[in-house]
Amino acid sequence: MEIIMKILIINPNSDPKMTEAIAKTAREFAQDEYEVLCLPTPGAPEFIETYEDSSQSAPGMIRLLKENEKIYDGFIVACHSDPNLDVMKEITVKPVVGIGEASMKIASMLGHKFSVISDTIHSIPNKEDLARKYHLDKVLASVRAPLEKNEPDSEKTIYTEVARKAIEKDAAEVIVLGCAGLTGMDKPLQAAVGIPVLDGIICALIIVSGLIRYGVSTSKLRKYNPHAD
Amino acid sequence: MEIIMKILIINPNSDPKMTEAIAKTAREFAQDEYEVLCLPTPGAPEFIETYEDSSQSAPGMIRLLKENEKIYDGFIVACHSDPNLDVMKEITVKPVVGIGEASMKIASMLGHKFSVISDTIHSIPNKEDLARKYHLDKVLASVRAPLEKNEPDSEKTIYTEVARKAIEKDAAEVIVLGCAGLTGMDKPLQAAVGIPVLDGIICALIIVSGLIRYGVSTSKLRKYNPHAD
Amino acid sequence: MEIIMKILIINPNSDPKMTEAIAKTAREFAQDEYEVLCLPTPGAPEFIETYEDSSQSAPGMIRLLKENEKIYDGFIVACHSDPNLDVMKEITVKPVVGIGEASMKIASMLGHKFSVISDTIHSIPNKEDLARKYHLDKVLASVRAPLEKNEPDSEKTIYTEVARKAIEKDAAEVIVLGCAGLTGMDKPLQAAVGIPVLDGIICALIIVSGLIRYGVSTSKLRKYNPHAD
Amino acid sequence: MEIIMKILIINPNSDPKMTEAIAKTAREFAQDEYEVLCLPTPGAPEFIETYEDSSQSAPGMIRLLKENEKIYDGFIVACHSDPNLDVMKEITVKPVVGIGEASMKIASMLGHKFSVISDTIHSIPNKEDLARKYHLDKVLASVRAPLEKNEPDSEKTIYTEVARKAIEKDAAEVIVLGCAGLTGMDKPLQAAVGIPVLDGIICALIIVSGLIRYGVSTSKLRKYNPHAD
Amino acid sequence: MEIIMKILIINPNSDPKMTEAIAKTAREFAQDEYEVLCLPTPGAPEFIETYEDSSQSAPGMIRLLKENEKIYDGFIVACHSDPNLDVMKEITVKPVVGIGEASMKIASMLGHKFSVISDTIHSIPNKEDLARKYHLDKVLASVRAPLEKNEPDSEKTIYTEVARKAIEKDAAEVIVLGCAGLTGMDKPLQAAVGIPVLDGIICALIIVSGLIRYGVSTSKLRKYNPHAD
Amino acid sequence: MEIIMKILIINPNSDPKMTEAIAKTAREFAQDEYEVLCLPTPGAPEFIETYEDSSQSAPGMIRLLKENEKIYDGFIVACHSDPNLDVMKEITVKPVVGIGEASMKIASMLGHKFSVISDTIHSIPNKEDLARKYHLDKVLASVRAPLEKNEPDSEKTIYTEVARKAIEKDAAEVIVLGCAGLTGMDKPLQAAVGIPVLDGIICALIIVSGLIRYGVSTSKLRKYNPHAD
Repeated sequence: MEIIMKILIINPNSDPKMTEAIAKTAREFAQDEYEVLCLPTPGAPEFIETYEDSSQSAPGMIRLLKENEKIYDGFIVACHSDPNLDVMKEITVKPVVGIGEASMKIASMLGHKFSVISDTIHSIPNKEDLARKYHLDKVLASVRAPLEKNEPDSEKTIYTEVARKAIEKDAAEVIVLGCAGLTGMDKPLQAAVGIPVLDGIICALIIVSGLIRYGVSTSKLRKYNPHAD
Repeated sequence: MEIIMKILIINPNSDPKMTEAIAKTAREFAQDEYEVLCLPTPGAPEFIETYEDSSQSAPGMIRLLKENEKIYDGFIVACHSDPNLDVMKEITVKPVVGIGEASMKIASMLGHKFSVISDTIHSIPNKEDLARKYHLDKVLASVRAPLEKNEPDSEKTIYTEVARKAIEKDAAEVIVLGCAGLTGMDKPLQAAVGIPVLDGIICALIIVSGLIRYGVSTSKLRKYNPHAD
Repeated sequence: MEIIMKILIINPNSDPKMTEAIAKTAREFAQDEYEVLCLPTPGAPEFIETYEDSSQSAPGMIRLLKENEKIYDGFIVACHSDPNLDVMKEITVKPVVGIGEASMKIASMLGHKFSVISDTIHSIPNKEDLARKYHLDKVLASVRAPLEKNEPDSEKTIYTEVARKAIEKDAAEVIVLGCAGLTGMDKPLQAAVGIPVLDGIICALIIVSGLIRYGVSTSKLRKYNPHAD
Repeated sequence: MEIIMKILIINPNSDPKMTEAIAKTAREFAQDEYEVLCLPTPGAPEFIETYEDSSQSAPGMIRLLKENEKIYDGFIVACHSDPNLDVMKEITVKPVVGIGEASMKIASMLGHKFSVISDTIHSIPNKEDLARKYHLDKVLASVRAPLEKNEPDSEKTIYTEVARKAIEKDAAEVIVLGCAGLTGMDKPLQAAVGIPVLDGIICALIIVSGLIRYGVSTSKLRKYNPHAD
Repeated sequence: MEIIMKILIINPNSDPKMTEAIAKTAREFAQDEYEVLCLPTPGAPEFIETYEDSSQSAPGMIRLLKENEKIYDGFIVACHSDPNLDVMKEITVKPVVGIGEASMKIASMLGHKFSVISDTIHSIPNKEDLARKYHLDKVLASVRAPLEKNEPDSEKTIYTEVARKAIEKDAAEVIVLGCAGLTGMDKPLQAAVGIPVLDGIICALIIVSGLIRYGVSTSKLRKYNPHAD
Repeated sequence: MEIIMKILIINPNSDPKMTEAIAKTAREFAQDEYEVLCLPTPGAPEFIETYEDSSQSAPGMIRLLKENEKIYDGFIVACHSDPNLDVMKEITVKPVVGIGEASMKIASMLGHKFSVISDTIHSIPNKEDLARKYHLDKVLASVRAPLEKNEPDSEKTIYTEVARKAIEKDAAEVIVLGCAGLTGMDKPLQAAVGIPVLDGIICALIIVSGLIRYGVSTSKLRKYNPHAD
C-alpha cells in the first residue's frame, strides 16, 4: 500500500476566505497525487502588508509548523512576500517553500524578464527587495500594481491592464501574481495577455512535492541550523 | 481514462551507457506518475566538454526535439552545461528544462551557497559562466573537480573528498552534481557528507513535470520567439 | 533652557548583563550630550542567534518601542544582525538605527574593505546576507569567527588572532565587531592590530543622535509606511 | 576644562559666497557643540563642474589640509562630487568626510531608494559614477536636474518640481541635495514634498564629529597609506 | 620583404550582399595595411536572428575557420550577436574577435553609457544578454530598434530617429550599430546625431589586427582549450 | 603624399629612464606605421603610487596635452593606474586611452579571468578599484605583487613566480602587467608561463591608433564635455 505524501500550506494571514481560495487552487492542482491542506495562521492579521504584519504572523506560523511537523511531509508559506520563510526553513528538517521564491525562480526559467503584478503600490519596495534577496533583481522587469484600488472594473479587467503595461512598457515576458489573494487569476490573465502567468501556490507545490519525493530538504549545515554552534 | 504525461530526456551526447544511466535515474524517480524516455543525440560526440562538442550536438538535438515534439509533453536537456538549451526552448511551444539550470535554481533554495562538483578542471570556467548566466554567481560557493582523474580510489571516495573540500574551504551548504555522468551518486554522497546533494536529472524532472501539469511553458513573446519580427 | 535629547537603545535579547554592557558603552560615549538608556526586550531569548530567536524578540521589541515612542527622540537596535530593524523603522516616525547597518556603512568610509568579527561560525551566512542587504557585499573582506569557542585564552587574545587573520588573509583594512556582546573590545583590539575597529553601538549613536539633531527620520512614503495604501 | 573639537570644512571652490553659505549651515547645526570653520580653496575655480575643475582645486585643497592639520580634529570636503576626497583621506591621520559620501550613505538608511537633485544636467554621469563608487547605484532612484537653468521661477519652486518628479517617476523615498550651493534648501524642500531631504554638509558634520569623538579615523593599512611600501 | 598580415572575416550568414557590404567596409578601413577577406558561411541561413539560426551557422563557421586557419593570421566573426564566438576562439590558436564584443568594449571607453541600435525588436533580449556576458550591462543605456520595419522613410532617417531617442530618453553618449547589415551607416549617423557611432566590423579590425601584430592570442589554459583535460 | 599619424604618450611621472623604456616599447611596436613620442610630465613625482602623486602629476599632464593637442592625433596615459585619465579625455576632442583600461579590456577578450601583476602590495586596492571602475571586477582573478621587493632574484624570476601563483591559485588565464615600469617583460613572461601577457602600452597603442584611423573620439555629449551646461 502506497503512502501518499501530505503537504501543509500555511497561509500567514488569518483570513478564512483567502485560506479557502488557496486551498481550492492547491487541491485542484494536486488532484489525487498528494494530500494538501491550507490553514490560516492563528493570531495573524487578516492581511499581510506591512513589516509589522509579518512579525505578528510569526508566532502563529511557528506554532502551526511545529504542531504539524510530524504529520506533514513538506510545507508551503503562501503569502507572496514570503514572510518568515527563513525561520520556517530553520525550524524543521522537512522541506519548506515560499510562493514568492518558487514563482520568481520558475519565472526566470521561462523568459527574458518577468514582472510581478501586485495588489498595492505600497508593496513595490518589498517585492523589489524580495527579488534582490533571491538574486533575481536583474531579471525583474518591474513590479506593478493598479493605481487606484476602488475602480469599478472587474478584477480581471484591472489586472489585465496592469499586465499589459508590464509587457508593453517594461518588456516583461512572464507575469507573476504577486499576492496569494490573486489565486485563480493565472489562467484568465494568461488567456488575455498571451504570455505565461504564474500563481506562486502552484509553483511552490511543484517544488515542494518534488523535494519530498526526492528526499531532499533544507541544508542544516549553518544558515538554517536551528542550533547555534 | 487518464492520459499520462510523457517526457523526453535528450542526452546531448551519443554515449549509450550514459543514456541508459540517465534513463534509469529518471524512471526510478518517475515511477508510475509519468512516462519518461532518454535518447542519445545522433551525430553528437561521445562526451560534451568543449564548445565545439556543444555545437556538434546541436543539429541532432534540434532534430530529436522536432521529430518528437508532438509525442511528448515536455523535454529535458540532460548535460549539466545546458548545451543548446536556448535553441531547444525556442523551437517548441512545450516546456524544456536544462539539468544545469534546474539543479542550480533548486540548490539556491536549500541553503546559503552551493558548490558544483564537476568531473574536469577544464569545465570550471564553463560552470562559472553558467551560474552567472542564471544570476547565481553570488550563491555559487565554488566549482570543484578531482585534481587527478586516474586515481585508484572509487568514484564515490573521490567525489566525497571533493564535496568535503567544498564544504570546508568554500562553505558550501548544498552540493550539485555537475555532470549527467555522475547520476546515481547523489544519495551515497549525501549520506557521506550530510548536506543535500542534487542530481540535475531529478531536479529537471521536478520542474518540467510540474510545468506540464500546470499548463505553462516558455514565453514566446520575444527572446524565445522562433520567428524574427 | 535647553531640552536634552533622549535615545533608547533596544537590546533585542533579554540578557541583563549584555544590556548593562551596552548601556555602559553608550553612556561613556554620550557623556553629557544626550541621555541614553538601554533596555532588554521582554519575552526575548537570552541571546539572538537563529531566525527563530529574531522572531521571538519581535513582539517585545515592538512593544518596547511603542510604549516609549513619545518619551524618546530616537532608537537603536543593539544586536549586530539588526533583527526586526525594518519593523522598528516602520512603526515610528522617529529615527531608528541598527548597529549592524551603522557600523558597516561607517566602516565602508574608512578603508578599502572591512571584515566583521563575529562570535560564532553559525552567524557567518547571516552576516553575509546583512552586508548584501546594505549593498556592502563587495567591500566585505570577510566574516570571521573563532574556530573553537572554549579556548583557554582570553577573549582579547582570541579576537586579536581573528582580526589578524582578517587583515593578513582577507586584506581587511577596517574591523567591525559583529556582536553587541563584544562591546568594549574596540579600543584594545584597535591598539593590538593597528587599524580602525568599530563598535556598532557607538556607530549607531553617532548616526541616530545626528539624525535627531538634524530633524530627519525614516521616509514614510512607501517602504516604511505603516499603513498599506 | 573641556577642549572643544574643531572641524575644518574645505570648500573645493574659491567662491566666497558659497563658502559663507556653507559656513552658515554648519555653524547653525554645530551650535556650541564644536567649532566649525569653512575655507575656500586658494587657486581653485569658482565652481567645480568638470574633471579639470577638480584637478585644479587639488593643489589648494592639499595645501589647506596640510597647513591646518594640527589645528583641526577633522575635515569635510564640501562639494557634492567629493573631488579629491581620496587624496584628502590619504594625507592626514585625522578623519575626512565628503558631503557626497555622507549624504548618500545616510540616505540609504532612511528609505528604499533616494534621488540626487543636482544643479546641472552635465553633472548626472558624475553623480551616477559617484553612487556606484560608494556601492549605492542599486539604491539610487535617479539623478535629476532642472532642464533649463534660467527659469523665471524661484529656486525653491524649481527644485520642488525636480524633487516631485523624482518621487513620482523614479519612486525616490529620500532626496539628497546634489550641490553644496543648494545648502539651506533642505527644510523648505522637505516641507514641500513630505519626504526626508538631506544636505550633505550636515550629514558630513554628523559623521566626522562622531568619528572625532570616537577616536576613529581612516585606515592607514594600504589604500590610504601615504607611503608606498 | 615584409609579409603583410591577412585577416579573414567570417560572415555567419550566407547572404552575398551583406558579405560584400562587410568586405567593402573592411577593405576601406584596412587600406594597404593588411589584407582582409570576407566569406559567407556555407549552409548558414540568409540572416541570423534566432538561436536556431546561430546553431545552423555553426558547422559552416567551424569548417570555414579550420580550412583557412593556416592561411590567415586572425579572424573576425561579423554578426553583432557574436554567434558561435566561443567555439571560434576555442578551435584556433590565432586571435578571433567578435564585432559585438569589440564594438561594445570600445564604446565603453568613449563615454558614460552606450546604446545599441538594432534592426529588430526581437533581438533586444539577445543584445541585453550579450552586454551582460561582456560585463557591460551597467553601461548599456538601452537597446533600441525601429518600431515598424516597413516605414517609407530611408534607413538613415529611421536609424537617426532611433539614435536620437537613445540619446534623449536613455542618455546614451555613444551609439553602437547592432547589426552587420547596418555597416556604412556609422559616419552618416555620427554626422546627424553628433556623438560617436561605432561599426563593429571596424572595431573588430582594430582589435584583431593589433593582436596579430602584438603576437597575442586567446589563452589556451582552460576555457578555450580545445582538449578536455 | 600620405600624412602619417602621430601619437603622444604622456608618462605621468617625471622619470626619464621609465620614459625612455616606454618610448622604446612603443617605437618597436609602431614601426613605420605611425610616429610615437613619449614625454615625462613636468612637475610630476618620479613615481606615481599614492593619490597625492596622481594629483601632483595632473597640472603637468594637462599642460602637456594642451600644448601638444594640435600636433598629435591621439594620446596615451602611460601609468597603469590611469591617473587623471578622465580629465585628459575631457580636455581634448582627440582620442585618449589609458594603459590600464586598454590592457584590462583586451585581457577580458582573451580568457576567462585575468590577473594584474603589480609592483607593490600598496597598489592592490587601487587596481581593484580600477577594475571595478571599468566593470571588470568579476573577471579580475586577482591582483598580485611580489611580497618582498629587495629579493636577490632577477625581476623576471620574481614576476614569473608572481604570475605562476596567479595562474595556480587564482585561475588567471591572462596576465596584465600592472605597471608601465614593467614594460618589456611581456614576452619573456609569456614564454615562461604559457598564457598571454599584456603590456598596457601596446594595448593602448592598438586602441588609440585604431580610433584615430577610424575618426572616432571621446563623446562630448555630457560626461567628458569640458563646458558645464
